[in-house]
Amino acid sequence: MNSEISIELVSTGAELLNGRSVNTHARLLGGRLEDLGFRLTRETTVGDVEADIADAVRAALERARVVAVSGGLGPTCDDVTREALGGLLGRRLISDAASLEALRARYARLGRALTESRRRQALVLEGAVALPNRAGAAPGQRIELGERVIFVLPGPPAEFSAILEDHVIPWLRAHFPDVRPPARVIFQLCGIAESDAVERLAAAGFDPAPFELAYCASPGNLEIRLRGAPDQAAALAEKANMVRALFAEDIYTEGREDLAAVVGRALQAAGATVAVAESCTGGGIGRRLTAIPGSSAWFRGGVIAYANALKTALLDVPSDTLAREGAVSEEVARRMAIGVRARCGADYGLAVTGIAGPDGGTQEKPVGLVFIACADASACEVRRRQFMGDRETVRRWTEQHALDLLRRRLRRLSS
Amino acid sequence: MNSEISIELVSTGAELLNGRSVNTHARLLGGRLEDLGFRLTRETTVGDVEADIADAVRAALERARVVAVSGGLGPTCDDVTREALGGLLGRRLISDAASLEALRARYARLGRALTESRRRQALVLEGAVALPNRAGAAPGQRIELGERVIFVLPGPPAEFSAILEDHVIPWLRAHFPDVRPPARVIFQLCGIAESDAVERLAAAGFDPAPFELAYCASPGNLEIRLRGAPDQAAALAEKANMVRALFAEDIYTEGREDLAAVVGRALQAAGATVAVAESCTGGGIGRRLTAIPGSSAWFRGGVIAYANALKTALLDVPSDTLAREGAVSEEVARRMAIGVRARCGADYGLAVTGIAGPDGGTQEKPVGLVFIACADASACEVRRRQFMGDRETVRRWTEQHALDLLRRRLRRLSS
Repeated sequence: MNSEISIELVSTGAELLNGRSVNTHARLLGGRLEDLGFRLTRETTVGDVEADIADAVRAALERARVVAVSGGLGPTCDDVTREALGGLLGRRLISDAASLEALRARYARLGRALTESRRRQALVLEGAVALPNRAGAAPGQRIELGERVIFVLPGPPAEFSAILEDHVIPWLRAHFPDVRPPARVIFQLCGIAESDAVERLAAAGFDPAPFELAYCASPGNLEIRLRGAPDQAAALAEKANMVRALFAEDIYTEGREDLAAVVGRALQAAGATVAVAESCTGGGIGRRLTAIPGSSAWFRGGVIAYANALKTALLDVPSDTLAREGAVSEEVARRMAIGVRARCGADYGLAVTGIAGPDGGTQEKPVGLVFIACADASACEVRRRQFMGDRETVRRWTEQHALDLLRRRLRRLSS
Repeated sequence: MNSEISIELVSTGAELLNGRSVNTHARLLGGRLEDLGFRLTRETTVGDVEADIADAVRAALERARVVAVSGGLGPTCDDVTREALGGLLGRRLISDAASLEALRARYARLGRALTESRRRQALVLEGAVALPNRAGAAPGQRIELGERVIFVLPGPPAEFSAILEDHVIPWLRAHFPDVRPPARVIFQLCGIAESDAVERLAAAGFDPAPFELAYCASPGNLEIRLRGAPDQAAALAEKANMVRALFAEDIYTEGREDLAAVVGRALQAAGATVAVAESCTGGGIGRRLTAIPGSSAWFRGGVIAYANALKTALLDVPSDTLAREGAVSEEVARRMAIGVRARCGADYGLAVTGIAGPDGGTQEKPVGLVFIACADASACEVRRRQFMGDRETVRRWTEQHALDLLRRRLRRLSS
């Protein structure tokens, strides 16, 4: 049995509470911990207020073995995390020689002066271990308190990630060698609603016990998770096989890979390329495909055909088809996919045209109506979909279903 | 003086702690509250565990007048927020007749059965007011506890937002009529680093007192905020004028509008249109421009010219230029901007070509090197930029600086 080590995160920063920024640290930290067999049990966000930071860390230390504190390590006057922790633990702040030297080198490289406020970034609590920061200026800190430990990490996401990977995770692994990754299977599905998935499992008499079964739905995506103790892998594999059999090709991957990466691998395996013709998504499908490093091996590019004239000029959609059927129609989607494939010299052409809203809907063609087409040398499939939600939600659904249409085509090809 | 009403958020959901999802509720709620003169003072995230939810809500009620609780109102077995609150407050759960009727109508519309697990969504705490949900199934709840109040909101972001706008904000306004919006100015800048902004203000002897001065940097963007009490508007206006004078056209907007929306308004005002040619951003600039409702008035579309052959075929970049200069070069960026402008019949052509990484860099052309070009009928400006960071960060910087180049061009035109 895994004796779970509970870990909490205290995030600091007014920008996380006043509408400026989304807190991405909890997702990053939680995901990495879960992979390793640890568990993020709580996250608390407070502003740049010494008393609030100290109070949140104090409460977290009462519950958790490890407390990570993020943000407030920069050079400006609202960076008060060091002072808050010094006050809470009754420790002085001292300038760390190696960190100060690293700051000196960094600002020299940038051609900037090492001002007094920038020097503050080398301050660490007395007795703390300074954790070098390869992605920025302020070092992290590790503060051991008997059985418990505080890690202090910078707020900028790239720096938070660097300190996490370089210092926090190696320490956790070394310090808790008995913690093993959980038995876990994560399924990603496209093309089925959460409530339908629940019903399908119930109708098949699926009983997850003794495992945790959890769902998470987002536009165009459903995640199903099964999780148990490290020594339950064999029993979990049986349950996972039942899920695989029930959902078959609705499952596009196991793990957390983006659908665009799955499509990219399938293209690479097939030695094929794709080009995209995007109207309502405005470039979002291309952006997701090119987020994958190495995508130039299988992504040619495409056309953002927002104005109707471009559908004709760059994609060869006949103007009388546009006039007769309207830009949001099965036939225009088909012509866009065929056109972009030919113009870009790709094996597959993927096209979307729809009404993302909030305006532009009619009785016959309401907001959320989208046509998605996938063409290869021999055929072109078109799907009509009616999505619900605001502009961004409709666009996200559309991206996801377009990528999924290509994935299913490539899958049939390889089976 | 504004007697500030403190508000806390308790977010529930395993997906927020295990790496699956980012919590967007805190940003939405915090931003809306800040606009109105309230303040989100703390956010706590816990998993789908009754005891943890109850503990977090109990602690929040000790500090705050208003506690918002999100998530865990769905039909599945891991939706336990109702039970957690019932246990904490010692109240029974009862089926709300109007909510059950709304569920019945909703599932009938969707052609689905109102199963026992779906009926659970109509359960509210005894004495609570059910808050109709126009964006989903489960109603929200308002639970008054003497001086304090708990609002319960569904987790899906569209439903959270609907309940917030329809029920929470109207109640706060009615219940706290004396709360007034703060005196506040928010500046958004592109083209200046945080540390340079700090130095420029210091060098000019700028003293923010008695106002709060805060910074928030993200790739390609710097936010500077000044905030004070509602009755300090006149004094704040003077301070704001000093900031305006110091940063001049580096400020692209005041408020929280996206740079793409600022560019869109400037194009609309000029009666002009733009087309984009994107290599390393892969469609990201087009996606941001088309995120703005009504963008078809000023956005024509463009070309995702990822493969070099498309830069020639769709943008008329001479193949000998590509061979001689390389795809990531000033001359290719220029030709792309001129080409996309002509091909798309736009007034402005905006082009980017760069090395987003992680591979593909050389000594001469390292990862992060980007050329950004903006063409109109008479000229084409090209900027060479060296960005730092991972693939997504470089792409984000590139999007932002490309939009900013066009903004500055339009600004000079109108001044």
